[in-house]
Amino acid sequence: MNRALGVCYYPEHWPEEMWAQDAAEMVAAGISWVRIGEFAWSRIEPEPGQFAFDWLDRAIDVLSRAGLKIVLGTPTCTPPRWMLERFPDMLAVDAQGHPRGFGSRRHYCFSHAGYRRASGEIAEVLGDRYGRDGRVHAWQIDNEYGCHDTILSYSEAARDAFRSWLAERYGTIDALNEAWGNVFWSMEYRSFDEIDLPNLTVTQPNPSHELAFRRFSSDQVVAYHEVQVAALRAHTDAPLIHNYMGRVLDFDHFEVGASIDIASWDSYPIGFLSDRLDGSAEHKARYLQQGDPDMQAFHHDLYRAVGRDGRWWVMEQQPGPVNWAPHNPAPLPGMVRLWSWEAFAHGAEVVSYFRWRQAPFAQEQMHAGLKRPDNAPAPGLAEAAQVGREIAEMPQIALQQAPVALIFDYPSDWAWATLPQGEDFSYFRLMLDAYRALRRCGFSIDILPSTVTDLSAYALVLAPGLATVPDALQEALAQTVALVGPRSNAVTEELRIPIPMGPALRGLDVTATRVESLPPHVTRAVIGGGTVQHWVEDLDGTAETLLQAETGQAVLKGNRRLQYLGAWPDADLWERIIHGLAKEAGLTVLTLPEGLRLRDTATHRFAFNYGPDLVEFQGKTIRSADVSWWGI
Amino acid sequence: MNRALGVCYYPEHWPEEMWAQDAAEMVAAGISWVRIGEFAWSRIEPEPGQFAFDWLDRAIDVLSRAGLKIVLGTPTCTPPRWMLERFPDMLAVDAQGHPRGFGSRRHYCFSHAGYRRASGEIAEVLGDRYGRDGRVHAWQIDNEYGCHDTILSYSEAARDAFRSWLAERYGTIDALNEAWGNVFWSMEYRSFDEIDLPNLTVTQPNPSHELAFRRFSSDQVVAYHEVQVAALRAHTDAPLIHNYMGRVLDFDHFEVGASIDIASWDSYPIGFLSDRLDGSAEHKARYLQQGDPDMQAFHHDLYRAVGRDGRWWVMEQQPGPVNWAPHNPAPLPGMVRLWSWEAFAHGAEVVSYFRWRQAPFAQEQMHAGLKRPDNAPAPGLAEAAQVGREIAEMPQIALQQAPVALIFDYPSDWAWATLPQGEDFSYFRLMLDAYRALRRCGFSIDILPSTVTDLSAYALVLAPGLATVPDALQEALAQTVALVGPRSNAVTEELRIPIPMGPALRGLDVTATRVESLPPHVTRAVIGGGTVQHWVEDLDGTAETLLQAETGQAVLKGNRRLQYLGAWPDADLWERIIHGLAKEAGLTVLTLPEGLRLRDTATHRFAFNYGPDLVEFQGKTIRSADVSWWGI
Amino acid sequence: MNRALGVCYYPEHWPEEMWAQDAAEMVAAGISWVRIGEFAWSRIEPEPGQFAFDWLDRAIDVLSRAGLKIVLGTPTCTPPRWMLERFPDMLAVDAQGHPRGFGSRRHYCFSHAGYRRASGEIAEVLGDRYGRDGRVHAWQIDNEYGCHDTILSYSEAARDAFRSWLAERYGTIDALNEAWGNVFWSMEYRSFDEIDLPNLTVTQPNPSHELAFRRFSSDQVVAYHEVQVAALRAHTDAPLIHNYMGRVLDFDHFEVGASIDIASWDSYPIGFLSDRLDGSAEHKARYLQQGDPDMQAFHHDLYRAVGRDGRWWVMEQQPGPVNWAPHNPAPLPGMVRLWSWEAFAHGAEVVSYFRWRQAPFAQEQMHAGLKRPDNAPAPGLAEAAQVGREIAEMPQIALQQAPVALIFDYPSDWAWATLPQGEDFSYFRLMLDAYRALRRCGFSIDILPSTVTDLSAYALVLAPGLATVPDALQEALAQTVALVGPRSNAVTEELRIPIPMGPALRGLDVTATRVESLPPHVTRAVIGGGTVQHWVEDLDGTAETLLQAETGQAVLKGNRRLQYLGAWPDADLWERIIHGLAKEAGLTVLTLPEGLRLRDTATHRFAFNYGPDLVEFQGKTIRSADVSWWGI
Repeated sequence: MNRALGVCYYPEHWPEEMWAQDAAEMVAAGISWVRIGEFAWSRIEPEPGQFAFDWLDRAIDVLSRAGLKIVLGTPTCTPPRWMLERFPDMLAVDAQGHPRGFGSRRHYCFSHAGYRRASGEIAEVLGDRYGRDGRVHAWQIDNEYGCHDTILSYSEAARDAFRSWLAERYGTIDALNEAWGNVFWSMEYRSFDEIDLPNLTVTQPNPSHELAFRRFSSDQVVAYHEVQVAALRAHTDAPLIHNYMGRVLDFDHFEVGASIDIASWDSYPIGFLSDRLDGSAEHKARYLQQGDPDMQAFHHDLYRAVGRDGRWWVMEQQPGPVNWAPHNPAPLPGMVRLWSWEAFAHGAEVVSYFRWRQAPFAQEQMHAGLKRPDNAPAPGLAEAAQVGREIAEMPQIALQQAPVALIFDYPSDWAWATLPQGEDFSYFRLMLDAYRALRRCGFSIDILPSTVTDLSAYALVLAPGLATVPDALQEALAQTVALVGPRSNAVTEELRIPIPMGPALRGLDVTATRVESLPPHVTRAVIGGGTVQHWVEDLDGTAETLLQAETGQAVLKGNRRLQYLGAWPDADLWERIIHGLAKEAGLTVLTLPEGLRLRDTATHRFAFNYGPDLVEFQGKTIRSADVSWWGI
Repeated sequence: MNRALGVCYYPEHWPEEMWAQDAAEMVAAGISWVRIGEFAWSRIEPEPGQFAFDWLDRAIDVLSRAGLKIVLGTPTCTPPRWMLERFPDMLAVDAQGHPRGFGSRRHYCFSHAGYRRASGEIAEVLGDRYGRDGRVHAWQIDNEYGCHDTILSYSEAARDAFRSWLAERYGTIDALNEAWGNVFWSMEYRSFDEIDLPNLTVTQPNPSHELAFRRFSSDQVVAYHEVQVAALRAHTDAPLIHNYMGRVLDFDHFEVGASIDIASWDSYPIGFLSDRLDGSAEHKARYLQQGDPDMQAFHHDLYRAVGRDGRWWVMEQQPGPVNWAPHNPAPLPGMVRLWSWEAFAHGAEVVSYFRWRQAPFAQEQMHAGLKRPDNAPAPGLAEAAQVGREIAEMPQIALQQAPVALIFDYPSDWAWATLPQGEDFSYFRLMLDAYRALRRCGFSIDILPSTVTDLSAYALVLAPGLATVPDALQEALAQTVALVGPRSNAVTEELRIPIPMGPALRGLDVTATRVESLPPHVTRAVIGGGTVQHWVEDLDGTAETLLQAETGQAVLKGNRRLQYLGAWPDADLWERIIHGLAKEAGLTVLTLPEGLRLRDTATHRFAFNYGPDLVEFQGKTIRSADVSWWGI
Repeated sequence: MNRALGVCYYPEHWPEEMWAQDAAEMVAAGISWVRIGEFAWSRIEPEPGQFAFDWLDRAIDVLSRAGLKIVLGTPTCTPPRWMLERFPDMLAVDAQGHPRGFGSRRHYCFSHAGYRRASGEIAEVLGDRYGRDGRVHAWQIDNEYGCHDTILSYSEAARDAFRSWLAERYGTIDALNEAWGNVFWSMEYRSFDEIDLPNLTVTQPNPSHELAFRRFSSDQVVAYHEVQVAALRAHTDAPLIHNYMGRVLDFDHFEVGASIDIASWDSYPIGFLSDRLDGSAEHKARYLQQGDPDMQAFHHDLYRAVGRDGRWWVMEQQPGPVNWAPHNPAPLPGMVRLWSWEAFAHGAEVVSYFRWRQAPFAQEQMHAGLKRPDNAPAPGLAEAAQVGREIAEMPQIALQQAPVALIFDYPSDWAWATLPQGEDFSYFRLMLDAYRALRRCGFSIDILPSTVTDLSAYALVLAPGLATVPDALQEALAQTVALVGPRSNAVTEELRIPIPMGPALRGLDVTATRVESLPPHVTRAVIGGGTVQHWVEDLDGTAETLLQAETGQAVLKGNRRLQYLGAWPDADLWERIIHGLAKEAGLTVLTLPEGLRLRDTATHRFAFNYGPDLVEFQGKTIRSADVSWWGI
């Protein structure tokens, strides 16, 4: 397994005379990859059809001559202002009906045919020029699909495309009416042209309507993306990459990932803790300058699954304070190194810092780089350089399949966002809770899509919140010890309650006959320890009751190999449940100090101390914000 | 007094082969009424002018042959999609100017003349067909006027109708300018056509303008409603009903109720606690699975006043967890029975559960029914059946007039919503506080409109928050012991301060010379116990000061028969005040265990234990979520 | 120095037969000024071009004959309804794109050329009629620019004017692109006509774009204002006044003030505490009926700087509960007098109460006056009359320059509102914290604009949060002991990070190399006492470290004369810092009881007890809500 460092660089932001020195310093810091170009459309094509490649040619020349491998980005997330003259209706429209205008980025609707074509054209032009250029070692398509809530667009282009998509999916309007249950509230349509987008209704729209719109919206991203893939594939054999943004769930990353070679993601641990994570004030204060101890690993494991053959990168790694979260503290000294190593331990080929030098202008002027705006080194640079030295010196880390797997499914997030039943029900939170519980027991984890059909290599598999459990997955679950639920196999793909009611798992007679959502701070005690919260099901069926609430409700039912969990556990109850499952699966559970997390490769055990205090573990002393590894 | 059970049923949602079995099971559970049809317009009239009555005929046939009496609903709250082609401008418009589109329900503006006419036409068609059909024993008009915040519409239709309404009300524009005080801030108009709706102004509009718009909006509901009443009256002698929704105050229910025969309301105790009630976190946790102990009774007493000759039903009774509140826990076992009996004790003729069977599709798929989506019985069914047996076995319950009355007035809610003075001032909360205080003292209560002119049968009458006290009511108050205030008779019907200033009650020299609104958690102690909060008036005048705050402010002034309350009491102070009034009125105050509530009929005392614990009262032991009754 | 009382009066609101009695009572209360006319456009010009001056003539006659001096207002903040027929597009547009309609006040866009002209015309008409009328002693132009968030307008008029303003400022589009760093995210424009207003973008717009729009918007107010100034100057020599609203920062008051003679402001201490101040719940409860102890003094000192030659008034003084804050308690007895005296102690020429009599109609019917709606005296009247007697009896109060100055800069507020970095970063809060800290040490303070060039008369000057420190100010700071920072000289006037990075103060080698924003409740301890919060910089450079956080970060660096503060202190740390600076400056620090504040004139020391308890200070006993003064 290769390991390398990279960096994001914007030659167009800096005087040309700085480029060579920048490149030399990158190399000196152990950096071997540099991503460029993804926001530079106005410099590449300043007027429609008039291209200016001279500066880009020179930048590529300077960088590659210093020894750097180039990732070239297609600039389609930042169409220039003139594009709006070509396509005045290309803008996405928000749920309130406002066009989302020019002046920042991502100002396009994925459904707009003209802009989709124009995106293919610029990819084609770039591919034509640089596709066979040996200095360009990889390509990034667009940038952070879905960032700034840009997947769902309520434009006319989206509406028209949605109608076509529905006609394609359902064939006849009667089939759609039947599938959605439109008889309810007289919502029946007489033709596809009567169907509007599901915004600005009096009260909530039909959830089947809304889920269809979410499936459509994800499909539009895939279709948009594949236009660029096709344009580039015609010209290059270099790997194609997209950089996903953390906790963006509005489109199916597995489907976008299917047509490209490498998955990458943009990892901003401290920004995410402030902006994108639930959690108690105490938890957020404890990890303020480190980030949540499981958020990064979760995404690493996710993108290892999204990437073809498990290939994945961190394309943007937070190097210091960012600018976009509600509050932006600095990483503790050591965290930039810790995050980098954590990515490598989870199998990243490249960790690429964003960005080389903090720009002194525009939206991200308060976003740290490895260098300060005045070109002095920022604190992150020394940590990156240390990682650079360490990866050069360290022997190969052979990855291995993890003993435990967690099923992650984008449409389940859409289903529960559409039909939450409790206003704070969050698929992502449920998944992160489950993932965290496994990690606190010391496990390394593989994340798998719900399309997986072979689980025989896993000792234990968890599938919480999986809206619909595919038949093939149900079969595969029989190959291992499995925990399903809560809220799994609870709806059909049309977001209806199935008859017979779920979970109705193969080989397990359990029915969730009724559900309750509970407000925060309401808990129900479970006999023997721990509580349930947020979500509680009434479980019926002949399967044995393994755990029971003090209310008498069954919380866990099943047998030694397959168990269904009918409620949302707190951390203590998760621990009890996992201990029980691990025993059945023949796995050893570890007791970790708070804030410590492990990752095992075939050759090494890595230990990451996210907590504020020094800890002792397996004879090692690990300081706060430090990583340790040893052979196993 | 009759007592019966009913259920809401949607034959159009289910295969026709299930209908007969459903009907038989209803009857077996003691149900004798079934409401159908109110959302079925797209099945009754699939294309404009093309009616499909065959299925409805068969449904009526099957249900009535099983012994069920039918309530037939007009489907005007769910106009089909094709109606929008006829009337593209029929949609209500929200305060931000967005049309509230098709895709859920209630997507119409009450002021739209075309849709109003179309509503009368469908009522006419249904009346023509079923008005003399002896199997249809009652009619429901529309469904839950005002649900989803649908009374106030800022459409062009509303604007034009508002101008006409204003011209009618004021005669000349000068009279309007004078009435509203438009000289303030140069808001004077030269013609009615210059007047816009009071939304999207720079800062708050003239409160007189806003109150006029609220009066107009209520009148539009009444006018809309009466079109259907007239259409049905021409064809049927069966009673006409509307089902009001809990805590919907944006139109005058007394005025809608005046033209029909029976008031009914939709009672969702646990949904209301989560979604529509103020209250401490502790209170909400204590009653999480029971609902607020006074919310249902309040509405029962209110709709007994709204219904002609006191006739009222619960048209929709929560049978299990609902889907629409922020969180949706299940009722404690026993609560469905408790709620049902509480309605009967307050005089309901029918308690009708919503709905027979949980639909496995569309918006309410997570809303419990008496039966599960898979047709197994849900927990509520057995409780309903128990009630069915009990009402069959129990002797008649003769209602009696209560000893205590509370005046409830919709325009007062509009006035204080328009001119709150403290952002959390809520007429409804004040009323519920007063009602709760009376109930905690053991009283049964009648709610009366502000138009009442004879109070001689009451020992005690309360009129808090009554914006304007009509002359006739002031006279009537002299017939009894009365408590008026706080914030009563404080404004004119045009929402101006009267000169002389209020309350200026007949026979009581009290003037509220100044008011204060206080933020939450700020209280002022009252000498002798209790505190005031939220709202404090400075009271002047020769009337005796009966209670005084430690600040020196008079809190209660008056004599043995008529007292004015100048502040918002906490629960302890309410208790003191009511004890004092009861003594003057010759009423006996009881001390109830927390969570217990009583209701006395002429023949029986009913006791409802909303609390989580078993209580002892008058020699009876009453379990949590249980009801007990005994002869008196 | 003169001291006088005034009152705001609306003859058009009252029967003409009340005017003479009103005037007599004003004079009896010691009032000598009366402001009229500023909302009366619909009465002055009921139809376009048809003027009705008779009533105004008579009002002026009655008032002046009673001995009152008149301030006449131009009514341009309340254009009549007919103005919208002339200029349908004159309305401001909010950030969501909604025109802000007729029906309250301030419904105009400062950029609308037609309305700007019409405003000049009505000023011209009034000036022509009353400019040489000796009874009109002063003029007020418009009313509370910016109240109700009315400075930023997203109208077409604003867009077009913005483009012209940009062309004027930058000359070429290339210069603008370079200045804003539009290469970032391909935001480059090809012409000024491509530039839209910075609203409704996908994510945040370029901060340089947004700051330019804020500068433009302030300039539009100035230009609008100067049209009226010019119209009036042609006709009158009486002083021109504008009444600014508290904590309205969206335009540059110094620039508006430059063309007129007297600054005035509208002081609503209790409304501000509820509505416009940050602060703990405990702080807000403690000062609920008094107002924040520093908010009024801050504005007094600010408007002494805004007014030409230091001339300033309180044009509107809260006399009792107001109507517009979230909650509206009454002032403690004594506060109306205390506020009045505090204004005089800070140099006000006139304190004018708003309003004479509470209007019983329209938006402000719940806003107290000196008289009740029924014409009885309200509690504030007696306090005003007491002040009237006291100012008549008291010897002259000679003002003196304060020993300490604080630099206040409107563009800094715009810069940090545009680029907060921490979502709760507030320039105003930082300024008020610094001001409060100085006041708690007993200092009287002068507020100065950032354009000041001579500080030699001050012993100590503070400049926190000053986005860009002008060269001339840097020179002036060398004349005194000065504290700069936090977040001072951190950006250029185009809102970019300067290279070399700031603060880079003349004579002090300090660079803020990195910044952190911290969530509320996160603090970092400083060695020796106190904490930093909200905002922490990493300081580098050779200047001596004077204070250090326990993290090792330098908090204060500098020498005995010039210090840079790199973090936001809590109250204890502010006290330490000011003690240190005062020692260097040769100033004596006092220890004040909580809630007590001082103001020294050349002749007297005034002490204001805002706290709820009696305090002892320098041998004096001062009751809550009382003011005391003695010669010094």
